[in-house]
Amino acid sequence: MLFYILGAVSASPAPATRPAGAGKGEQTRAAILERAVDLASAEGLEGLTIGRLAAELRLSKSGLFAHFGSKQELQLATVAAAAARFSAEVIQPALALPGGTPRLRAIGNAYLDQVDQYAGGCFWFASSAEYDDRPGPVRDAIAAAIEAWIGVLAAEAAAAGLEDPDRFAFEFYSLGMGANSRYRLSGDRRAFEYARALLDRLPDPA
Amino acid sequence: MLFYILGAVSASPAPATRPAGAGKGEQTRAAILERAVDLASAEGLEGLTIGRLAAELRLSKSGLFAHFGSKQELQLATVAAAAARFSAEVIQPALALPGGTPRLRAIGNAYLDQVDQYAGGCFWFASSAEYDDRPGPVRDAIAAAIEAWIGVLAAEAAAAGLEDPDRFAFEFYSLGMGANSRYRLSGDRRAFEYARALLDRLPDPA
Repeated sequence: MLFYILGAVSASPAPATRPAGAGKGEQTRAAILERAVDLASAEGLEGLTIGRLAAELRLSKSGLFAHFGSKQELQLATVAAAAARFSAEVIQPALALPGGTPRLRAIGNAYLDQVDQYAGGCFWFASSAEYDDRPGPVRDAIAAAIEAWIGVLAAEAAAAGLEDPDRFAFEFYSLGMGANSRYRLSGDRRAFEYARALLDRLPDPA
Repeated sequence: MLFYILGAVSASPAPATRPAGAGKGEQTRAAILERAVDLASAEGLEGLTIGRLAAELRLSKSGLFAHFGSKQELQLATVAAAAARFSAEVIQPALALPGGTPRLRAIGNAYLDQVDQYAGGCFWFASSAEYDDRPGPVRDAIAAAIEAWIGVLAAEAAAAGLEDPDRFAFEFYSLGMGANSRYRLSGDRRAFEYARALLDRLPDPA
């Protein structure tokens, strides 16, 4: 799991959702998982059964079983797909920028844009609230992906010269979750502005 | 719903979970709802069926149906009970203190203590993540209670003399959610310290 996000930070090629030259089976699998991530963001990962997803995609349950042998396998594949999407949309585009403040601002703004744009909101907010009290492989995969996200924030905050990068990582993680929650419950768009202010206060590079 | 939290702030007597002189039926109902709040904090409100709760409490389903006629009625009663508990434990004890910084620090610390102590974590974190995309009366009740919590934070921040009380309310709401999430997923207790720092930075009363 760490690979998906941290792999991106080390500037190695990220695992593409649809790898070039992948067979039709893999393309179908990737398309199914894209929809699964959206569905889980809105309705939760626990409700993501093979039957529910089959109905949504108008596929047969037996066809889905051919891709994912069990509900848990589907859930773990969905967490991995969400991490790959997060890497591709939030982290990868910022790697062209210098480390520290410029990259951290780009990553942070891309994250908030994503929270704003996706109809179901933040996959990680929804799934972490759902699984923090359900021990098992799904919880572990979610926790590892979030740990990696906190790690990226802290590493870039250190590169930006902050005295306490772990504190910054926690604060941005929290304001991002708070913006997701406030915007989705109340429609108050100031939440995004409040969260972006933390990025604005980062020290400008010399 | 606003009544439960804001009623406390206006220093009117809060609705007691077990009113003096209440009949045995009401006491039983209150005891059932206490357990329902804990269960929903850990496993979610959507999974809180009458059957699940009956099994947990070793009561008959028909007995529970006598108290709550439907799953939705049980869910709404659980949200109301969670709001009453929040008022009694987080807000009421602070009302003896002067408004502004002293009261806001007491409220904020009581909230973080509660997040730390309850086995299932914060009811509002869990239920808001679960319901932000499920329109209906349960979502509306959760949103109204959270709106009231934000309102309390903003009112006390204004009394403390902050220039932008809504920003403070959003920030504390976010750091509280973040502390709940980080502590429960990673066990990192620094999250509480980071969240409390926002309270420490409030202006001391003259």
